[in-house]
Amino acid sequence: MAERFLSKRNLRFTLFEALNIQEITQYERFATHNRKMFDLVLDEALRMGKDLIWPACEEMDAIPPHLENGKVRVHPVVARFMAESGEGGWIGAPFPEEHGGQELPITLAMACQFIFSAANYSAAVFPELSTGAAHLILSFGSPELAETYLPPMMAGKWQGTMALTEPDAGSSLSDITTEAVDSGQGYYRIRGRKIFISAGDHDAVENVVHLMLAKIPGGPPGVKGISLFVVPKLRPEGGKLVENDLICTQVYHKMGYRGTPLTELAIGDHDNCRGFLVGEPHRGLVHMFQMMNEARLGVGMGATGIASAAYCQALEYTRSRTQSRKMGNRDPLSPPVPIIEHADIRRMLLFQRSVVEGALSLILQCCRYSDLVSVTQGEEKERYHLLLEILTPVAKTFPSEMGVLATSAAIQCLGGYGYCDDFPVERYFRDMRIHPIHEGTTGIQGMDLLGRKVVMQEGKALSLFAETLAADAKKAEEFPETCQSGERLVLAMKRVEEVILHLVGVAGEKGAEAYLADAALFLEMFGQVAVAWQWLISGMAAARGLAVAKSKADRNFYQGKLLTMRYFFAYELPKIEGLATRLTDGEALTVDMETAWFED
Amino acid sequence: MAERFLSKRNLRFTLFEALNIQEITQYERFATHNRKMFDLVLDEALRMGKDLIWPACEEMDAIPPHLENGKVRVHPVVARFMAESGEGGWIGAPFPEEHGGQELPITLAMACQFIFSAANYSAAVFPELSTGAAHLILSFGSPELAETYLPPMMAGKWQGTMALTEPDAGSSLSDITTEAVDSGQGYYRIRGRKIFISAGDHDAVENVVHLMLAKIPGGPPGVKGISLFVVPKLRPEGGKLVENDLICTQVYHKMGYRGTPLTELAIGDHDNCRGFLVGEPHRGLVHMFQMMNEARLGVGMGATGIASAAYCQALEYTRSRTQSRKMGNRDPLSPPVPIIEHADIRRMLLFQRSVVEGALSLILQCCRYSDLVSVTQGEEKERYHLLLEILTPVAKTFPSEMGVLATSAAIQCLGGYGYCDDFPVERYFRDMRIHPIHEGTTGIQGMDLLGRKVVMQEGKALSLFAETLAADAKKAEEFPETCQSGERLVLAMKRVEEVILHLVGVAGEKGAEAYLADAALFLEMFGQVAVAWQWLISGMAAARGLAVAKSKADRNFYQGKLLTMRYFFAYELPKIEGLATRLTDGEALTVDMETAWFED
Repeated sequence: MAERFLSKRNLRFTLFEALNIQEITQYERFATHNRKMFDLVLDEALRMGKDLIWPACEEMDAIPPHLENGKVRVHPVVARFMAESGEGGWIGAPFPEEHGGQELPITLAMACQFIFSAANYSAAVFPELSTGAAHLILSFGSPELAETYLPPMMAGKWQGTMALTEPDAGSSLSDITTEAVDSGQGYYRIRGRKIFISAGDHDAVENVVHLMLAKIPGGPPGVKGISLFVVPKLRPEGGKLVENDLICTQVYHKMGYRGTPLTELAIGDHDNCRGFLVGEPHRGLVHMFQMMNEARLGVGMGATGIASAAYCQALEYTRSRTQSRKMGNRDPLSPPVPIIEHADIRRMLLFQRSVVEGALSLILQCCRYSDLVSVTQGEEKERYHLLLEILTPVAKTFPSEMGVLATSAAIQCLGGYGYCDDFPVERYFRDMRIHPIHEGTTGIQGMDLLGRKVVMQEGKALSLFAETLAADAKKAEEFPETCQSGERLVLAMKRVEEVILHLVGVAGEKGAEAYLADAALFLEMFGQVAVAWQWLISGMAAARGLAVAKSKADRNFYQGKLLTMRYFFAYELPKIEGLATRLTDGEALTVDMETAWFED
Repeated sequence: MAERFLSKRNLRFTLFEALNIQEITQYERFATHNRKMFDLVLDEALRMGKDLIWPACEEMDAIPPHLENGKVRVHPVVARFMAESGEGGWIGAPFPEEHGGQELPITLAMACQFIFSAANYSAAVFPELSTGAAHLILSFGSPELAETYLPPMMAGKWQGTMALTEPDAGSSLSDITTEAVDSGQGYYRIRGRKIFISAGDHDAVENVVHLMLAKIPGGPPGVKGISLFVVPKLRPEGGKLVENDLICTQVYHKMGYRGTPLTELAIGDHDNCRGFLVGEPHRGLVHMFQMMNEARLGVGMGATGIASAAYCQALEYTRSRTQSRKMGNRDPLSPPVPIIEHADIRRMLLFQRSVVEGALSLILQCCRYSDLVSVTQGEEKERYHLLLEILTPVAKTFPSEMGVLATSAAIQCLGGYGYCDDFPVERYFRDMRIHPIHEGTTGIQGMDLLGRKVVMQEGKALSLFAETLAADAKKAEEFPETCQSGERLVLAMKRVEEVILHLVGVAGEKGAEAYLADAALFLEMFGQVAVAWQWLISGMAAARGLAVAKSKADRNFYQGKLLTMRYFFAYELPKIEGLATRLTDGEALTVDMETAWFED
């Protein structure tokens, strides 16, 4: 492992051996690419990750962004990273060529995002946010908006953000109160307050462009009255940039993820903030969902990157730290062994590896579907679209929730040292904890999965998912190393379907509230099955690789892959048993109880 | 909930309604106590917790102890708390009267420790460490040692510590290298290095007394050659205190638990450090286990206190924060409800409550056994002793491991605010993470349970535990509210016994390494069952209480108790299914694998 934050070998394995992403170049849109170019892209991202942002990790945590004379100061590496991201074409890489992009498959772009996140998550989000915001303008904005805003955003000179959350409307977007009044002169007057806006203001760029949700007075109530606007910090006017009455009033003090300023914004306090409608009025949330879905995969990838870095540190430490003897050796004078020789440490390492590599594979699989949606038609396109839809909440949540446990296991591998800042694992644990919260909490993702995705088109996404798993399990019969895991996967998916059947009954009997009460647990169960599926795919690729492996190093890698697959099926997947019991036991405690019972 | 860090009502319920600890006053040793006095003790501890140490929580985290001109500066509240603890007789409270103690039952002393830990964990450990160290001197030290050291330690003027860990011997005490050479003049010359020593040096006391493990040259190798010493920072000589060549060389920077200095000590660098043997030579580890067992219960209680404080904050927040509407209400103009009305939030609150109150009950149950050991004889004494032995690793680990998840759930209840330091929950999450590490990691506790306690005296402790559960399940049949849970508990315990039977087979076939490979998972399973048992006991007490409850408040409390019991049996206990599957599937992945498979 040349890099100390990820396994290059594993990233290539997942992309090119397990998911065969190079096959996408057979489609015309991606025909200018090839495997070799993909490798070059990954190498360049690795270089930037390793040489540019990784060295700043610790300092960005120790000296977080702060407000100074009304300006948000961030670590100087952010300016360099934004500039290099712009110059290297990273921000607009997945965009069409006619918009200055490189038609880079999302899968590859996200693999690079994995690299940046593993190297330095706080730094990685700056260009990532710009990509998402620019993509939204590109998809729904007018040609004028695109012309004005895209070039500087893609050049890394202007920061993009997504400005959704408000003080009294966290997860509940229908309650936002930021107002947008049509001036009749081509812009809206915006007035309101936003909180928790990542990179909402900072001095590493010339300007900040908020993709902001607001309500046009007179529109329908609730989410159907939300519109989307471009609201810049400085607005271009007569060839200059002028203040747009949008100021940062607070930078939050966070437990982790400290290199990125999380900001509070006051908008239009002097009635001089102009916003520009993106897409149709009252369709803001529908438009925003494009960015939110991308951002959710991005959050999953960020969590995976952090967990990867923590795992690498744990691996490095447990290989070199010696302590105790192998069980059964009763000679206290014999030398101690590296602690990686102890079963309990190995279990914790395999847990981390199974989470990191399983999550990486799941998110890249989602990206693969996203790329395929862009180049296929009809039923095939629909299939990929539905699989992407049902897997997005899972790809956001599994890495986020399991990442908290994985980074915790990394701390445990280092013992007392892991709790101190002599090693970075405690920082990874702190950085990780934001992920089950931002871009839709785990509770929200659970409701999205069970309340929307599972039932959409009469369960079509779910059926496609089950079919896909069954087909892969069928293929797994070919390899002695994977056939048993394939059988277990089929049984696990059957269990998911039984749970859904039961819950549908609950919905009919007791209504939506009881149906969705434990949606977060259903999501947990679904996530285990989805990642088991990815492990099966990786296992098959490893079995193929092992059969033709020539070097000892190759054999070790494939053996390790197969072992980690077995670990996941033996240690993690059985957790669905308890979840299924819970989800089908018929008790609706949290719905039936009285709030007063929390009193004492 | 008058206090913002614990439920007084629940503490009293657990002590006096569920565990009936007042019955202990029927024994002569405790005959001078009564229920009313116990209440006064708790009230006084609450006052100190609330008025003295709770207000310093935030500052102790923000400005951690630091080395300044060779001195470790701690927050001024520590000096006040040590002084009050000394003056009020708290440090020696559980000691016999002839040694200046108050014969306070350990159960009550630990209930007070819960209060202090919930109020301010970092502050709470200072007097607690002194109690443990003083108890060791009292139990095994010479009358001279006791006379010299006990009075100032019990008065809160001298700090006690346990000094075990060394740079190359974390969990592996057999490898310590600190040397103790008999001077032939009534003392030993100590030389070595200790790390991670809590409260190992600070300016809130006049002196620090280390209960230190070291090896006398020529003794047997390994743990059998370890002896125990009193090694003071300043040694009393000719009526004065003189430097004892023991200095603090580092204060560690920790993620949490930041108010207590974790120190590195250099001992005898100038060959002028004197230590005084406690008990017999080479019996140090056996002696130290007394302190370690107490400390392990203390760690469990510390974790429970922190989880309690986090839960109180989550409860307070979710009651007042309004967002979204009840499911099924499709009118976006209706006012939002407090988020405690949402099922997902309630589930997270019930999870926290089930962990906090279940863990509290389990630890107090252990303390009750400890008190009963001190007043009973023969078979009865042996029974309590064995139950205490088998439950100690569980009482340390369940609160520590589940506490990490519980404080994480508290953060989740607060959403983005939970991740920021505007609220204390992020601090509780950081404070909590030390507990699965210190006083024996979870891995060590697992091996203690499965490798030692389960098999001791041919499984006698285990049989007694199973009998105790069966007897309580039998009693639970009397109440309609608890009879089903009782049945489930019996089945769960049966599952534990099946797992052990399987593992014993593994031990015979594959040896100790395979038997113990997943000991941490066995401990997790055992912990769920042990806490389910405590919930059953609480459930029965609540059923009795509900039957005679006169006020609405009482009915709410008992209903809440019964609901939380149901929560634990419905949501938590089923987790043992996956664990049992894992533990009996016959795979010994972590033992059979090659370390090289971690390469890539």
